[in-house]
Amino acid sequence: MEWKVDRDADKPLYQQIFEYIEEKISYGEYPPETLLPSERKLAQQLNVNRMTIAHVYDELQASGLVERKKGSGTRVSSHKWGILPKGVTNWRKYIEGGSFIPSYPLIRRIRGEAKVMENGFNLASGKLSSDLFPSEYLQSVLSEHTFPSDLGYEHPQGLLSLRETIASYVKTYYNINTTSSSVLITSGAQQALHLITQCLLNPGDAVAIEAPSYCYSLPLFQSAGLRIFGLPVDANGINPDDIVTLYAKHKIRMIFLNPTYHSPTGAILSDARRKKVLDIAAELGIPIVEDDPVSLISFDNEQYAPIKSYDRSGNVLYVGSLSKVIGSSLRIGWLIGPQSVINRLADAREQIDFGLSVFPQMIANLLLQSPEYPKHLVFLRQELLERRNEMIDALRDILGEKVEFTIPKGGLFIWCKIKKKVDDQKLVEEGIKHKILFMPGSVYGAPNGYVRLTFAHLKKESIREAVKRLAIVLDHI
Amino acid sequence: MEWKVDRDADKPLYQQIFEYIEEKISYGEYPPETLLPSERKLAQQLNVNRMTIAHVYDELQASGLVERKKGSGTRVSSHKWGILPKGVTNWRKYIEGGSFIPSYPLIRRIRGEAKVMENGFNLASGKLSSDLFPSEYLQSVLSEHTFPSDLGYEHPQGLLSLRETIASYVKTYYNINTTSSSVLITSGAQQALHLITQCLLNPGDAVAIEAPSYCYSLPLFQSAGLRIFGLPVDANGINPDDIVTLYAKHKIRMIFLNPTYHSPTGAILSDARRKKVLDIAAELGIPIVEDDPVSLISFDNEQYAPIKSYDRSGNVLYVGSLSKVIGSSLRIGWLIGPQSVINRLADAREQIDFGLSVFPQMIANLLLQSPEYPKHLVFLRQELLERRNEMIDALRDILGEKVEFTIPKGGLFIWCKIKKKVDDQKLVEEGIKHKILFMPGSVYGAPNGYVRLTFAHLKKESIREAVKRLAIVLDHI
Repeated sequence: MEWKVDRDADKPLYQQIFEYIEEKISYGEYPPETLLPSERKLAQQLNVNRMTIAHVYDELQASGLVERKKGSGTRVSSHKWGILPKGVTNWRKYIEGGSFIPSYPLIRRIRGEAKVMENGFNLASGKLSSDLFPSEYLQSVLSEHTFPSDLGYEHPQGLLSLRETIASYVKTYYNINTTSSSVLITSGAQQALHLITQCLLNPGDAVAIEAPSYCYSLPLFQSAGLRIFGLPVDANGINPDDIVTLYAKHKIRMIFLNPTYHSPTGAILSDARRKKVLDIAAELGIPIVEDDPVSLISFDNEQYAPIKSYDRSGNVLYVGSLSKVIGSSLRIGWLIGPQSVINRLADAREQIDFGLSVFPQMIANLLLQSPEYPKHLVFLRQELLERRNEMIDALRDILGEKVEFTIPKGGLFIWCKIKKKVDDQKLVEEGIKHKILFMPGSVYGAPNGYVRLTFAHLKKESIREAVKRLAIVLDHI
Repeated sequence: MEWKVDRDADKPLYQQIFEYIEEKISYGEYPPETLLPSERKLAQQLNVNRMTIAHVYDELQASGLVERKKGSGTRVSSHKWGILPKGVTNWRKYIEGGSFIPSYPLIRRIRGEAKVMENGFNLASGKLSSDLFPSEYLQSVLSEHTFPSDLGYEHPQGLLSLRETIASYVKTYYNINTTSSSVLITSGAQQALHLITQCLLNPGDAVAIEAPSYCYSLPLFQSAGLRIFGLPVDANGINPDDIVTLYAKHKIRMIFLNPTYHSPTGAILSDARRKKVLDIAAELGIPIVEDDPVSLISFDNEQYAPIKSYDRSGNVLYVGSLSKVIGSSLRIGWLIGPQSVINRLADAREQIDFGLSVFPQMIANLLLQSPEYPKHLVFLRQELLERRNEMIDALRDILGEKVEFTIPKGGLFIWCKIKKKVDDQKLVEEGIKHKILFMPGSVYGAPNGYVRLTFAHLKKESIREAVKRLAIVLDHI
């Protein structure tokens, strides 16, 4: 809830809240039969006394705007303002349907808290903190640039100049050979995964993902009706032979991998395994989707050749993004693959959102072509390395023997095992109570008792405080 | 195909084309078994002699890169460079699957031509021509503005400041009452429709659309597994009583309407019918999706109150967009509805593309808040009125008795009946032959022999030429 009471206003709080709810009812934002929050919950959300809300609800009832029944809460009246009801839509039936499945309750809970939490610590978000966005550099790039009066032809695959820049970018940084016509610009990596699951796979198809995996937390796999099977991850990533086993058992049709600084574990698929995975997949005739959002965030100057860089027969769909290296405010990602696949996905994408705005595409193109970009990468790695180190030191100093983790060589996350037995649901709730958010391992398909902690979303000076808070949470559970 | 031969280069054309295809094969963009275009088609695409392509294909075959079989065309070899094949993905099987259905072949054909056509006339696109984009005004707005270094919190419903602006914008221009928390910023109107069909309806559900309807041309309804039923449109839009009939027969669960300057017919739903539609839908308890992209483009200064402006119980999901009033380069649309619906769709949207970039949202916000915006609207209406008049005059002068149409009072399209009996497919092909594109009525579910002509995508001085071209097409069919 974005609206807040105005404590400096002359109008009493209960009157402000009454008018706020009355307005929502009269505008149809709370249609008849809408269940209002409980007094306790609304009081908490608006940070007012519960008696104030009780007063508001009494007034709303007296005006005939809401009805209150014991046990079923406070609902918007269908007879409001004395007018006979014309009948209304039972929205709940619509909202609970739909082939597209909502996010998992635990993730919705965390995201909901992230929206309203004030003065807390968010170690759950996978986004870079906003101070890492190269805004000065953007401003200087934009000041030298005037947008052309003719914004040019909008191609279903995305702006041609950006696709050309990306083709050369992936050659420079990843040794991937491609041309602009095999690049599809997407709204981040997320949209690439959505298009793949919706357009290349059928309900009932079996696919393999890492176990644990970021993909497990995305209901879009379930929304597409896919059956997902796990490839266990060790320190060197998945074991290629497991692909053969899964294929024999379930006839998997696609493999989703995040080989470098894997989310959530941070594992790096070894080079030998990369090559073997590619060989096995080719032999079985099943494609690999390689999700590679953070491999440029390296803390030891190691660069790992993507599987795609070894691919000569178009067996790998390669997914990249600027979200973890420039910032998610651009929402620029890309998918590289055989031209026929790109055409199919570009067509679907025209139906889904008609393509991306040219503005973030132009900005991304300017940023990538600027000589400042490599300097930004150096800055970003250094900054994130310091935050990683700060978090590791804090975890050791404050939590010591209570947790176990390996030091990630790149990326944004620390995958942390809590030694004492905990229930993920309770852990998250206890965290919320203490205003600290993190991702519990179970959302990635891991057993209870793991957490993924982001060190990229908080400034360095807050990290130790956040770990202290985490320690308090662990003490309380 | 964006790549072009370089006629000024020293390298012979066949050598350039050979290297181009060789590169695509070696990069995996044309995986083994990929069917290459026929000699004739590729020659046409690249605008070279067919003998040149024959030469290229001979060379590719001699190098072992492609295999040619009588009757099955030219395919990329699976034994390329003499290496034993490791097996490859049969991409065709993937591309032809997927729950998301591709665009209709006729629409794909038209869009494909639009991408490559040079010096032709595009009356098919629903986009404003780029010279209508207020680029000077954008430049002046941007020059006074520096993007904040902290781009701020990204809300799943979209940028708060833009949502607040839109809430006041729809009040000013449409007399719709809403607040920022019931607004979802979407990637144009298209994404709003996609989210609604995916999240609020179940496969097998029946929905009503206008007949003919723009919605008919969108396979996203079929992709969601919906059964669609038509409400015939006359000069005053649909007949509200037809809703009752459809409900009795098919238990329709949602009604999609485009009441003002309806696409494709230009019809305006009368005010009395708007109120009746709302009453009937409420009584039946089924929601209305009101798609309202062009109602500000009025040629007679009439403003039609949207159905949503009469809605007091949240029965209407209102879809708006800046694509037809500022330009599609922004990709900014919005959906206004009950808060619970907005929350459900915002959650799904986080999974689909993680939200829009803040840049077009900030730009849209600056443009809408600028005092120049109302002036832009005046300019746009005047400009489009002149184009409409030019097209009407040209149709009368050149095609005279051969066609029938009503003069649209707003919007971007003329719906035109061709009096002689024609087959839509042949009509489109003949148009392509003469480099003129238009939308045949059958893609909107109309009988053969109608075309939707856009007067907003061509400059005024080209419109008469385009109509002359259309006359030639009609003479040839």
